[in-house]
Amino acid sequence: MIGLWLQDGELALRGGLTRPQPPEGEALVRVRRAGICNTDIELVRGYYPFTGILGHEFVGVVEHAPDGHEHLRGRRVVGEINAVCGACAACAAGRGNHCYNRTVLGIVGRDGAFAELLTLPAANLHPVPDDLPDEAAVFTEPLAAALQIREQVEIDATERVLVVGDGKLGLLVARALASTGASLCVAGHHVDKLALLAGQGIETLAVREMSKEQIERVLRDFDLAIECTGNPAGFATARRALRPRGTLAMKSTFVGSLTVDPSSLVVDEITLVGSRCGPFAPALELLASGAVRVADLVADSFPLSEGLAAFEAARRPGTLKVLLEVA
Amino acid sequence: MIGLWLQDGELALRGGLTRPQPPEGEALVRVRRAGICNTDIELVRGYYPFTGILGHEFVGVVEHAPDGHEHLRGRRVVGEINAVCGACAACAAGRGNHCYNRTVLGIVGRDGAFAELLTLPAANLHPVPDDLPDEAAVFTEPLAAALQIREQVEIDATERVLVVGDGKLGLLVARALASTGASLCVAGHHVDKLALLAGQGIETLAVREMSKEQIERVLRDFDLAIECTGNPAGFATARRALRPRGTLAMKSTFVGSLTVDPSSLVVDEITLVGSRCGPFAPALELLASGAVRVADLVADSFPLSEGLAAFEAARRPGTLKVLLEVA
Repeated sequence: MIGLWLQDGELALRGGLTRPQPPEGEALVRVRRAGICNTDIELVRGYYPFTGILGHEFVGVVEHAPDGHEHLRGRRVVGEINAVCGACAACAAGRGNHCYNRTVLGIVGRDGAFAELLTLPAANLHPVPDDLPDEAAVFTEPLAAALQIREQVEIDATERVLVVGDGKLGLLVARALASTGASLCVAGHHVDKLALLAGQGIETLAVREMSKEQIERVLRDFDLAIECTGNPAGFATARRALRPRGTLAMKSTFVGSLTVDPSSLVVDEITLVGSRCGPFAPALELLASGAVRVADLVADSFPLSEGLAAFEAARRPGTLKVLLEVA
Repeated sequence: MIGLWLQDGELALRGGLTRPQPPEGEALVRVRRAGICNTDIELVRGYYPFTGILGHEFVGVVEHAPDGHEHLRGRRVVGEINAVCGACAACAAGRGNHCYNRTVLGIVGRDGAFAELLTLPAANLHPVPDDLPDEAAVFTEPLAAALQIREQVEIDATERVLVVGDGKLGLLVARALASTGASLCVAGHHVDKLALLAGQGIETLAVREMSKEQIERVLRDFDLAIECTGNPAGFATARRALRPRGTLAMKSTFVGSLTVDPSSLVVDEITLVGSRCGPFAPALELLASGAVRVADLVADSFPLSEGLAAFEAARRPGTLKVLLEVA
């Protein structure tokens, strides 16, 4: 089969890859669509030393399901990306996504979704409702990650929430949190991308068009700020916008180091919380019900055979989601 | 009156200071004992530009109480250090310690406790039980700050809590949290100071006497780590010791900048929480009941007239609490 193979910082389209054999308890999935995430781009840049088939956002069809999971056979599915041991202290404590022995689809020790076939534990797979198109279902994984914020921070309708960043992550986070009823504001640099949030009850601020004084007057006293830029300037904006005892959720793949002012965190009793993978079931529900729309977040779509061109497109600053059509 | 006056980074014993006149709603307190905190030392070093009488840890006797607070007259009291407006958004939201218009005793815009007399809003004062000696009551403010961690982070008896630092703050934090029933461990450099925790059900680790391998094997999988050193090495130790989804409480006055690895915070979904002033009532209870002992945390005691020598002593690395005898 063919797939996008990462080795020594070099991404290549490889043919003749061995057809994966699902180990016990795992299913074999024929990938239909896959999405390119910033984490993929950062992995190519060397963020984490991974060798193998890249990709962790996908929708596919189960070709083989292990005993006890027969209901999955032939079903269209999405899949949680952490494959866990079920036996370590983290698993025993109910923190499976933090399993000490985990592999992670296309990220840690496990071939990923930018190929014709993948394997994952059957327990990781979630059937996709029939009327949810592949192009939306492929957003389940990043939407679940956006929803993880709700698992970590209580958000109610009285709160003011700021999303910093208008990239694909920021827009998805904003839409994911709209259902909380909180007052939402997205600060970004791109008028055209912020416009995608029009009519959804979400305030937008094009900070490049604002004076420093305007920014300081408007970007303050938020209860929760969600950093979706992955850069120190975005972090600083999120920090400054918080009220005392506010919470800053770090949602992006943040490469390199970050310098913080510890004294200000202490004096203002700020909470920082790192946020990674999230719950698939509510993500599927929000997509299936249409409560979170994603069609306009797709920038482009390429066949897997043109995967390198897809990466070129995805890497261009300001590009929204680039999809791979695999089958 | 005399007092320790800070101006332009210079601490001086001044005589002839104007006797403070309590404004409406404020009480006049004759200071009996005051404690030197690391924040005082950092203020002298220029941590924050403060001009005036330093000091925020005290016990004293009310000489004048405003109408409506007659019960305080002649009472021995300790005092919360944030004087608040009661009208701003932070006050309205019940976050008085974060009042946007606050003054802070001996820290922000208000003369402090290293003098014969001070004023504070009567509402800030807490009568001290008769049988609690001055030398213990003066620890109410720092103990309250230690207890603030319990207000911010749920700590139950199943948890493993690491305190990083064996200075006066670390020792006080450890004793403050002993009543939670959590499994407590204090990591520090000073065998003599760690010995002060012996027989209190608190594990201690003298990290200087351990190999790197030992440290890595032992300092891991904590649910909560409390940074009480105020330096980046202490922060790094606290961070490394956490399990995924663990919490790092930042308790010390942390001067300068701090570099963090944002990716690791995101991947491990770590929570950082800054922690400042805390509740006086439970602090007084713990001191009065003897549940938290502090007598052995006093390194030395000086009359106010020898306040500069007291600061010299307090500044010496490894020195525990230095007290000023004022009246």
